[in-house]
Amino acid sequence: MSIVLGPHQYGKAENRIVRVYRDSPRHEIHDVNVSTALRGAFDPAHLVGDQGAVLPTDTQKQTAYSYAKEKGLTSIEKYGLELGTHFVDDVEPVSGARIEIEEYAWERAVVDGAEHDFAFVRKGQEVRTAAITVEGKGDEQKTWVVGGLKDLVILKTTGSEFHGFLKDEYTVLQPTSDRIMATSLVAKWRFITPTEGGATGAAAWEGFDWEGTYAGIKQTMIEVFATLHSLALQQTLYEMGKAVLERFPAIGEVRLSAPNKHHFLYDLSPFGVANDNEVFNADDRPYGLIQASVLRSDAPDAGPAWDIAGGFA
Amino acid sequence: MSIVLGPHQYGKAENRIVRVYRDSPRHEIHDVNVSTALRGAFDPAHLVGDQGAVLPTDTQKQTAYSYAKEKGLTSIEKYGLELGTHFVDDVEPVSGARIEIEEYAWERAVVDGAEHDFAFVRKGQEVRTAAITVEGKGDEQKTWVVGGLKDLVILKTTGSEFHGFLKDEYTVLQPTSDRIMATSLVAKWRFITPTEGGATGAAAWEGFDWEGTYAGIKQTMIEVFATLHSLALQQTLYEMGKAVLERFPAIGEVRLSAPNKHHFLYDLSPFGVANDNEVFNADDRPYGLIQASVLRSDAPDAGPAWDIAGGFA
Amino acid sequence: MSIVLGPHQYGKAENRIVRVYRDSPRHEIHDVNVSTALRGAFDPAHLVGDQGAVLPTDTQKQTAYSYAKEKGLTSIEKYGLELGTHFVDDVEPVSGARIEIEEYAWERAVVDGAEHDFAFVRKGQEVRTAAITVEGKGDEQKTWVVGGLKDLVILKTTGSEFHGFLKDEYTVLQPTSDRIMATSLVAKWRFITPTEGGATGAAAWEGFDWEGTYAGIKQTMIEVFATLHSLALQQTLYEMGKAVLERFPAIGEVRLSAPNKHHFLYDLSPFGVANDNEVFNADDRPYGLIQASVLRSDAPDAGPAWDIAGGFA
Amino acid sequence: MSIVLGPHQYGKAENRIVRVYRDSPRHEIHDVNVSTALRGAFDPAHLVGDQGAVLPTDTQKQTAYSYAKEKGLTSIEKYGLELGTHFVDDVEPVSGARIEIEEYAWERAVVDGAEHDFAFVRKGQEVRTAAITVEGKGDEQKTWVVGGLKDLVILKTTGSEFHGFLKDEYTVLQPTSDRIMATSLVAKWRFITPTEGGATGAAAWEGFDWEGTYAGIKQTMIEVFATLHSLALQQTLYEMGKAVLERFPAIGEVRLSAPNKHHFLYDLSPFGVANDNEVFNADDRPYGLIQASVLRSDAPDAGPAWDIAGGFA
Repeated sequence: MSIVLGPHQYGKAENRIVRVYRDSPRHEIHDVNVSTALRGAFDPAHLVGDQGAVLPTDTQKQTAYSYAKEKGLTSIEKYGLELGTHFVDDVEPVSGARIEIEEYAWERAVVDGAEHDFAFVRKGQEVRTAAITVEGKGDEQKTWVVGGLKDLVILKTTGSEFHGFLKDEYTVLQPTSDRIMATSLVAKWRFITPTEGGATGAAAWEGFDWEGTYAGIKQTMIEVFATLHSLALQQTLYEMGKAVLERFPAIGEVRLSAPNKHHFLYDLSPFGVANDNEVFNADDRPYGLIQASVLRSDAPDAGPAWDIAGGFA
Repeated sequence: MSIVLGPHQYGKAENRIVRVYRDSPRHEIHDVNVSTALRGAFDPAHLVGDQGAVLPTDTQKQTAYSYAKEKGLTSIEKYGLELGTHFVDDVEPVSGARIEIEEYAWERAVVDGAEHDFAFVRKGQEVRTAAITVEGKGDEQKTWVVGGLKDLVILKTTGSEFHGFLKDEYTVLQPTSDRIMATSLVAKWRFITPTEGGATGAAAWEGFDWEGTYAGIKQTMIEVFATLHSLALQQTLYEMGKAVLERFPAIGEVRLSAPNKHHFLYDLSPFGVANDNEVFNADDRPYGLIQASVLRSDAPDAGPAWDIAGGFA
Repeated sequence: MSIVLGPHQYGKAENRIVRVYRDSPRHEIHDVNVSTALRGAFDPAHLVGDQGAVLPTDTQKQTAYSYAKEKGLTSIEKYGLELGTHFVDDVEPVSGARIEIEEYAWERAVVDGAEHDFAFVRKGQEVRTAAITVEGKGDEQKTWVVGGLKDLVILKTTGSEFHGFLKDEYTVLQPTSDRIMATSLVAKWRFITPTEGGATGAAAWEGFDWEGTYAGIKQTMIEVFATLHSLALQQTLYEMGKAVLERFPAIGEVRLSAPNKHHFLYDLSPFGVANDNEVFNADDRPYGLIQASVLRSDAPDAGPAWDIAGGFA
Repeated sequence: MSIVLGPHQYGKAENRIVRVYRDSPRHEIHDVNVSTALRGAFDPAHLVGDQGAVLPTDTQKQTAYSYAKEKGLTSIEKYGLELGTHFVDDVEPVSGARIEIEEYAWERAVVDGAEHDFAFVRKGQEVRTAAITVEGKGDEQKTWVVGGLKDLVILKTTGSEFHGFLKDEYTVLQPTSDRIMATSLVAKWRFITPTEGGATGAAAWEGFDWEGTYAGIKQTMIEVFATLHSLALQQTLYEMGKAVLERFPAIGEVRLSAPNKHHFLYDLSPFGVANDNEVFNADDRPYGLIQASVLRSDAPDAGPAWDIAGGFA
């Protein structure tokens, strides 16, 4: 038996880059949080403290900022592909890169009914996410792109039931045919990497409509949540994922993680006050947590795409 | 010399009440966080542990939930006035009450271009706030209402300068004629309590347009932030408060607290990359913090209205 | 009627300064978060954007870092006094300064039973606080020092009752003669500014034992919490404050703010399992919130000492 | 092509259970946050909303609280094993369970130099963690136990270098031979499941010294951090994991995730003030992030042990 180094990676986390486009009087803004991680032949750094193969995390940071200008920062998936392929292609000891990005959306301030050119209000709703994985050099290179969102808080005041569940000796929950259903949705969708034409890396996705796809997926999930009469949060999640796959052929798999944010009907009967699903206590903890994947039966292999936390978080 | 009890209060903080109106198929939702505090003759509880005059914080909670149905929960200022005057009027040892409320806004889910009847998405932008203070019983009773908002994150990519400042031996800052200006605004506005007609408490405000006033003040502040060419965040804040007072005669004073969320131009020159106010690092800490009050010269006395934290926080 | 500028202040918040003393092989570390705020003749900055009297917040930051070396950073009260009096004494338009500091404690790593010279583990328990206010120049100068702590989480599993309380129509709470009592204590204590000898500012406190006083006050409060058989959190707080005043003549007033962190006995009876105060649910919200001041009848005037949030927070 | 359900699980997250042992006047307290997740034949819940196989998350919660009394709650690993095997053994549709637990440590209040019987102060340092996975029924059942800690903030003021690193065109970092090294450590260690005697589940670990092992591993990691002269955080992490494996034969693998919490030397030269590694700015973001596994070459298969976030987080 010997003691050996297992999987390892290193990078610079949470670079808070703000990119302004001011080529016309009507400025654009992109506000992101970028984390980079590199994988490769870094064993000597761990085993004997030799940094000869280690590109500093500070350099990764500098590159992330510079690429926001050099390559541009519009769609985060595209920017992440540029950054990830650079590290793998251009830094010899790097065999794989993982780029994770959050984007905070802004809307234009409205003045006298018109959108302002350079004043913005942070939207504050969901956070858009992306995770790009690049592995291998040259013809062997593979890329995986996962888009997503988090903190999308959605709620319906009716149209949700929960009954017919399994019971054991610890079951005291009463069935209900009308409850509030609410969640703070985390959704991630895996794009099917284009293979026609032989292009790899960022080039393989040239011209892809990242913005339209994001907006469409978000809207699809909200619509299903709203319109499906729900027998369980499980059912709602599955139908949300299914609808995304039906409408967006570029997506191979959707993963959803949804806390069941309980809203308990408040007992006002001691005060002689009726409460017909009108007054609720929004509880913090505990919460149900439902997680599911919905995918195409012929989706390509996920590889390391879902290795969100690398088993380290 | 003796040791004595000074100012004191007690209450139930952060009741997470959700009120649904479902009188028609088109439901309404109000999602609030309510904190109550009572002041009065509670010395024996402190001095000898005698609870005879202490209405439990649990009772305050029950009342807050029940009033959401009994009195209704539409405008938070109105609900807070109902709750505050109840405690002072109906609970003998209570001489004063402070009700603090946060409200989280929801927008209707949009399905096929139409607003849904009972599915909602949390807006996530600013949090609306209110602080109602009631003091005294019967004819001596006085009320103060402070409305407000927090977490309104606003930014302009140009139209902001900073120069001509005072220098001492620790001054290394360079002046600038074009910078990003950004803040996460906290604003509070003190309403002038109506005195005509002799009504007190909630009745004095009967028919007041709380919703229109809130929307108008928020919009006014955003417009001034956007359109004023700024020589300092101080100037922007003053003009925001001034515009609110000019447009809303019901407001006597505005208090603004604004972190200067620094966006530092990133130095890309080592890489031969130009950066003409295009790539910034959004820093977390430290931040500037500018705080100012703007008021009418004839505003009535603020009394305990601004005693937000009671000197205890 | 005219619109006028009311109270205002500005500064640099949350400077994260770490000061290492390495004069001997046994290093010392002080880890603080410093916020400065200046008050004075800054009206032109607000009214017309003229910064001529405004010492930049960046300069305040530079000074805070430099003073950590120039004046030293051992006791936060002493450092805050040095910084506050500097701004008022040396910057002409400044009439008052407020310095607020948090300190995070570290303990030495223990290796083979001995304390290490330069490796530390963050203690993680309470955060120590200080708020220093300086007003006026020259002979008119006054200073107030408030020490304190926050996030001190204390709990007793018995020795706490709650009964005999006032009841109204919303009261459903049952009395108890044995409950868990827990809080996350915020305490602040106002020092009596020494006046003998005529010294002002930092000099007036020369030689004061800040470290011993802090440790003693923390220990006193923990001891009273532990040993007092409590009939209410109100009583416990009062006795904690009273004991501090009795033991520490340098303290004129103590303010305590204590959430009643509810631990609800969990109902295991449906499962035929006895629960004799053994299994509890630690709830998040809502929580009781008890706040009280305890002071000497002859304490000097508090002036602006307690103006923690300046009415702006 | 068809659309299919992929991996899925559901449970109750963040049950805040406090367990008091009061069999003698000297009470004991265990304060935990328990999350349960079940895996199995729950497809109908997703596909058609049929809950027939779904044991409610509320039932999982009730069980977690009741087991704190029925089975006891001393070591979190033992409690998690009891809970996880119960769900798999006793609930027919459940094929696998994942129990994740955080524990918050308390120390006894000290009064007159002696530890108090029933008053406690929360330690506030690191959070202890455990993740127990149970898969399969009867003889096929397998269990994996991962212990760990998070939020252990450690720092050394010297004894850390960083130089000799790889450079590219974005590298501006200067090498250093003396810097502060600090991290907020997340460590997880995978126990080797005992197989002698043929016992499975909790029984396989009967009599294991969970408490001594935890304390020993924490101490080992702190000692290595303190005493190793570090050429890189990578090296320090590897040596910490290696030492744990050398001293604790029950551990098969250690995973470490460590932010490099940058402390930047503050430039005081403009003020003519020397700064010989004495005054630092503790920056928030970005931070380096180093992650590595250290394991025995003959460690048994990790199975789902490291599937911390299930690819869903």
